[in-house]
Amino acid sequence: MSNTFGRLFRFTTWGESHGPALGVVVDGCPAGLPLDESDLQRDLDRRRPGQSRVTTQRKEEDRAEILSGVFEGRTTGHPISILIRNKDADSSKYEPLRNLFRPGHADFTYIKKWGIRDHRGGGRSSARETAARVAAGAIAKKLLAHLGVSILGYVDQVGEVRWDGAHFDADEIERNIVRCPDAETASRMEAAILEARKAGDSVGGAITVQADGVPPGWGEPLYGRLDSDLAAAMMSINAVKGVEIGSGFRAAGMRGTENNDPFEMKNGETSVRTNNAGGILGGISSGAPVVVRFAVKPTSSILIEQDTVTASGEKTTVKVEGRHDPCVATRAVPIGEAMMALVLADHWRLGLGSRIGESD
Amino acid sequence: MSNTFGRLFRFTTWGESHGPALGVVVDGCPAGLPLDESDLQRDLDRRRPGQSRVTTQRKEEDRAEILSGVFEGRTTGHPISILIRNKDADSSKYEPLRNLFRPGHADFTYIKKWGIRDHRGGGRSSARETAARVAAGAIAKKLLAHLGVSILGYVDQVGEVRWDGAHFDADEIERNIVRCPDAETASRMEAAILEARKAGDSVGGAITVQADGVPPGWGEPLYGRLDSDLAAAMMSINAVKGVEIGSGFRAAGMRGTENNDPFEMKNGETSVRTNNAGGILGGISSGAPVVVRFAVKPTSSILIEQDTVTASGEKTTVKVEGRHDPCVATRAVPIGEAMMALVLADHWRLGLGSRIGESD
Amino acid sequence: MSNTFGRLFRFTTWGESHGPALGVVVDGCPAGLPLDESDLQRDLDRRRPGQSRVTTQRKEEDRAEILSGVFEGRTTGHPISILIRNKDADSSKYEPLRNLFRPGHADFTYIKKWGIRDHRGGGRSSARETAARVAAGAIAKKLLAHLGVSILGYVDQVGEVRWDGAHFDADEIERNIVRCPDAETASRMEAAILEARKAGDSVGGAITVQADGVPPGWGEPLYGRLDSDLAAAMMSINAVKGVEIGSGFRAAGMRGTENNDPFEMKNGETSVRTNNAGGILGGISSGAPVVVRFAVKPTSSILIEQDTVTASGEKTTVKVEGRHDPCVATRAVPIGEAMMALVLADHWRLGLGSRIGESD
Amino acid sequence: MSNTFGRLFRFTTWGESHGPALGVVVDGCPAGLPLDESDLQRDLDRRRPGQSRVTTQRKEEDRAEILSGVFEGRTTGHPISILIRNKDADSSKYEPLRNLFRPGHADFTYIKKWGIRDHRGGGRSSARETAARVAAGAIAKKLLAHLGVSILGYVDQVGEVRWDGAHFDADEIERNIVRCPDAETASRMEAAILEARKAGDSVGGAITVQADGVPPGWGEPLYGRLDSDLAAAMMSINAVKGVEIGSGFRAAGMRGTENNDPFEMKNGETSVRTNNAGGILGGISSGAPVVVRFAVKPTSSILIEQDTVTASGEKTTVKVEGRHDPCVATRAVPIGEAMMALVLADHWRLGLGSRIGESD
Repeated sequence: MSNTFGRLFRFTTWGESHGPALGVVVDGCPAGLPLDESDLQRDLDRRRPGQSRVTTQRKEEDRAEILSGVFEGRTTGHPISILIRNKDADSSKYEPLRNLFRPGHADFTYIKKWGIRDHRGGGRSSARETAARVAAGAIAKKLLAHLGVSILGYVDQVGEVRWDGAHFDADEIERNIVRCPDAETASRMEAAILEARKAGDSVGGAITVQADGVPPGWGEPLYGRLDSDLAAAMMSINAVKGVEIGSGFRAAGMRGTENNDPFEMKNGETSVRTNNAGGILGGISSGAPVVVRFAVKPTSSILIEQDTVTASGEKTTVKVEGRHDPCVATRAVPIGEAMMALVLADHWRLGLGSRIGESD
Repeated sequence: MSNTFGRLFRFTTWGESHGPALGVVVDGCPAGLPLDESDLQRDLDRRRPGQSRVTTQRKEEDRAEILSGVFEGRTTGHPISILIRNKDADSSKYEPLRNLFRPGHADFTYIKKWGIRDHRGGGRSSARETAARVAAGAIAKKLLAHLGVSILGYVDQVGEVRWDGAHFDADEIERNIVRCPDAETASRMEAAILEARKAGDSVGGAITVQADGVPPGWGEPLYGRLDSDLAAAMMSINAVKGVEIGSGFRAAGMRGTENNDPFEMKNGETSVRTNNAGGILGGISSGAPVVVRFAVKPTSSILIEQDTVTASGEKTTVKVEGRHDPCVATRAVPIGEAMMALVLADHWRLGLGSRIGESD
Repeated sequence: MSNTFGRLFRFTTWGESHGPALGVVVDGCPAGLPLDESDLQRDLDRRRPGQSRVTTQRKEEDRAEILSGVFEGRTTGHPISILIRNKDADSSKYEPLRNLFRPGHADFTYIKKWGIRDHRGGGRSSARETAARVAAGAIAKKLLAHLGVSILGYVDQVGEVRWDGAHFDADEIERNIVRCPDAETASRMEAAILEARKAGDSVGGAITVQADGVPPGWGEPLYGRLDSDLAAAMMSINAVKGVEIGSGFRAAGMRGTENNDPFEMKNGETSVRTNNAGGILGGISSGAPVVVRFAVKPTSSILIEQDTVTASGEKTTVKVEGRHDPCVATRAVPIGEAMMALVLADHWRLGLGSRIGESD
Repeated sequence: MSNTFGRLFRFTTWGESHGPALGVVVDGCPAGLPLDESDLQRDLDRRRPGQSRVTTQRKEEDRAEILSGVFEGRTTGHPISILIRNKDADSSKYEPLRNLFRPGHADFTYIKKWGIRDHRGGGRSSARETAARVAAGAIAKKLLAHLGVSILGYVDQVGEVRWDGAHFDADEIERNIVRCPDAETASRMEAAILEARKAGDSVGGAITVQADGVPPGWGEPLYGRLDSDLAAAMMSINAVKGVEIGSGFRAAGMRGTENNDPFEMKNGETSVRTNNAGGILGGISSGAPVVVRFAVKPTSSILIEQDTVTASGEKTTVKVEGRHDPCVATRAVPIGEAMMALVLADHWRLGLGSRIGESD
């Protein structure tokens, strides 16, 4: 069950990094949504390896092929199966890694769990799987756009370079290769990434994803809270080590008078004056933007020699060759957006019928 | 479905803050576990209101009554239903709040979602629900103890007072009323809480929960990752705004060489030298302690006047009277432990049968 | 997970036959539905033991107590917890059965699965659990009534006495103690039951449940088919051995020309001329009445001596004393209705959002 | 969620009858199982169209391609994605059916639910989807074989020809084209099918599926009963109208003394002398063969003119041309076996950890 996400708008991914293909089956998308392959391609291109000098140089076109669930240009309500071929897998670099455990990777835990693993490119544990989520997320985004919801992500930290929040230019995000909303910060981030790469090392980062237009009332109480689902969603992305909603960890240092968001009327609607809650109160959307931030660790694959052991328990060292991102934050932006979209699409369906007389 | 948590070891909670009772049904506990009501009481007492001068003064005994699933002192494999009566509910203080929205609370979002809400004590959105989780968690802890796993939580931050990590004394945790592992820090934390209370204000905090003895191989890949489930679990607790695993948000500022945990042999076992991963690699336990940290916001209910609006859209102000914790961090310790235990118990069952020849 | 039924309108039951109480938690009922305990009592009374000379003589009031989820007479959207106390349990008759396996009962399989069982009154395997479903079903029925759907069940077979289908009088059903829609057949059924009881034996039967007013379009394709869910629902009732939809097993002997239901226009609506499909095509309701029939085996508890073995493998014989129904068909009517209602309520919610532009 | 079946050993199917391909993703198969494409082919060939003169003449090779989850000949514990190309789809015959409702088919209900449908070959409602289940079932069968469980299905009724149960020859089943265990009955069944085809009509039938070697203790109580899951599984197959376990509907006419299966010791094991229970007591396997029987209606697509209406509500008639099975029972045998296998594989995993000390 662990390869499926969502309850009503749900998807199941499959495939390994160096297998013939990977893919996703999206189930629960409502019928009647106009959809074709070009709808999926924009975000796949944003996630694609080899797109810039701060990403891995593996070249994949990541062309999505829709095999079911669409008829005469519209969704039918039936599962949408999407296939993406692997074309540039080079397994030769992985042969020396077959019988040792790369630090920071899932090699050791996978072997302990299953007794067998596809070591080529990390197999199932590779972030290549995220292409499938991004394709699914593109469908969710299209549905959400129809419902008036839009989603935007950006990088706000790379290593020690943090965006100070002063200048935000939405158009700037896709203009620079790190996806930061401020050009000047972006160039410092890019320098930090290239410096790490030059040292054979890698660097961490953080991403903010925001959803605008979510109406009040989406989300469930308790164990289906919107924030709980978003935390699970973001933490399911490779390399993510922390998730926060609204004021997040800063709230630990605050007082109630600072952190509470006063209510006020704005254009006849009950609104919050500030948004420390990140758009979610009691697990349910308040109508304010839904704001999530998550941290990604520095890429585990580095060219610097590290201590480790072999599968048979001998001490050794490893330099992880192959083609890797020196910082995964920039490519994580469309992935985080996809997960946000998938959670919201699911909650849209979940919420229908919450009260008598509304949807019946 | 939103009042149920877990897949195989799962529980469903019910009840409102000022209703006659609240409770939980635990399904999926294996048969044969010795269990009686005293097993639940220790953690219920740690979570109980009115236990010290830094918590709310509502007095509840929180006596758990087991109504099913136990026969002659052992679990039967059938659902364990636990009932906790509400005895000291005082709804009078809530009458003035019936038609306005308390900042930081779920009043507004609940009304937008359901069109009706039990305003007494916050109804279903009250943290009183967590008594039910703690009772369920006590069963999970007992099962885990049988499997060699123990769980320990503590407060590491209250407002601006952060524990520096220098001195850790496990026995100290329950000796001081804030549940900090260092006595000196604990007294500064207590002072910070009492100062906030005196000002009619509240203060946030952070909690670390650690599980020792989890063998390598627990957890699922992708959407059933142990870290993903833990993030959802902690974020489902009232007032939680952020969750991190291992190095967490610090990882964003680190390099791969710093954050990667080298493997080494220790007592014949493959082990990690450091534990930035928080005991989880690729969503699966590595054998190192599983470490989660989460932030709680300052209590939303404060005695200081705040701007808000009424249900009919008029501007007003509110001071939230009633009995409230000035800082929820200390009582969140057993709740965080319970959620950790419930996630781990679930993953223990989920993992059985992962490979041929092991469990058949 | 096996004590929970349903996806969005779902319920979880708990409790043993001779424990202090049993109950159910209903999650997913929309907010705003008027509800109080009297709504549950009518069907509980129809299911209650001791109601007539053809049922067991155990006397239980089966008073349902609502502990949560209802505020000022209306549902709130939160879990509805219902408690029913056991009052007339007499465990003395079960002591001799503690260490042997009653034929037809779950004694043997429960011990093989869990290694422990509450032998008193069958413990969790007792049909007493169905009181909890009937209470949950009463809520579903109330919701369905609001949506224009009504449900009616009746006995159509007791042993070799089959109702010929000639005379159907809905009002007759509750007028006779076997719940047959034809008075004359009812009296022959009653005689068959009493004759079996007199012989210390028991007799099987069959029940039809019909839902009227289900609009076209409820149900899901493939593994969420309305008929698939109904089959699971009915087969989950104690003693049920077969389920059929519409023409059911008769269809095996038919030709397409006989079994196909031609479409025609009736009052401007596309309708079926006959209803061999039982109101379901491709897993989805057609607008015609949804018709399910199920068979119950003769009660396993009989006073006639039968061969069996003890838990330690010795040959022995057993006469099952205690208070038992000689035929469970009559009390199965409200249970079957409850399960039909619960499946339909779930599908109502599931279907919302199936297409763009309808529910958004 | 409706395109997924199972809890732990689960699968998700996708694809339309005349789309480019169909497929299935199997999640939860344990690691280490030897598997290659030839393992899937035997059952796919048994289900394949065009295999004999009593089946449809559509020619499909139904070659299964495994795209993931297998590494160096063994399963890895990760999702197994299987792709089957559609090669002989001929949509021209369906063009006249685009805007009318074929009696007995899902055309009308699909349009009412989704407002759009792929009319070519029935789209998603086509029994072509069952190829995907058969592929998934072949994996489940291989796992079960490893656990000592084997599954066998056969046709016991075609129209009015019923097998009398007298002679059972397992080897005969695949020797005749109707899959009946008695050669003489098989030839009468074949005649019945060919006669119906000649008349442009179709005929129903019934199938029995039996699992041998299931140990006592598989299955869950209440809503996860083995019989309940089997009923749902069989009823999810196209054209199935009834399901029974063991004595099934005959139990309605029986007395307890006849239907109860006495226990006895056989080779040191507690066993049942008869098997009216069909191997399941209280939802849990008893160690006796698990026996399910299901009825399939006569194929809805017939060449005889039938009354119907168009999508715009006009009266019309229809003869359903195209290539159809005159009786679906024979091809339903491997499908029923697959569903039995999938239910059992799921219950094997579900049951692990049911009691303390067994699997930990």
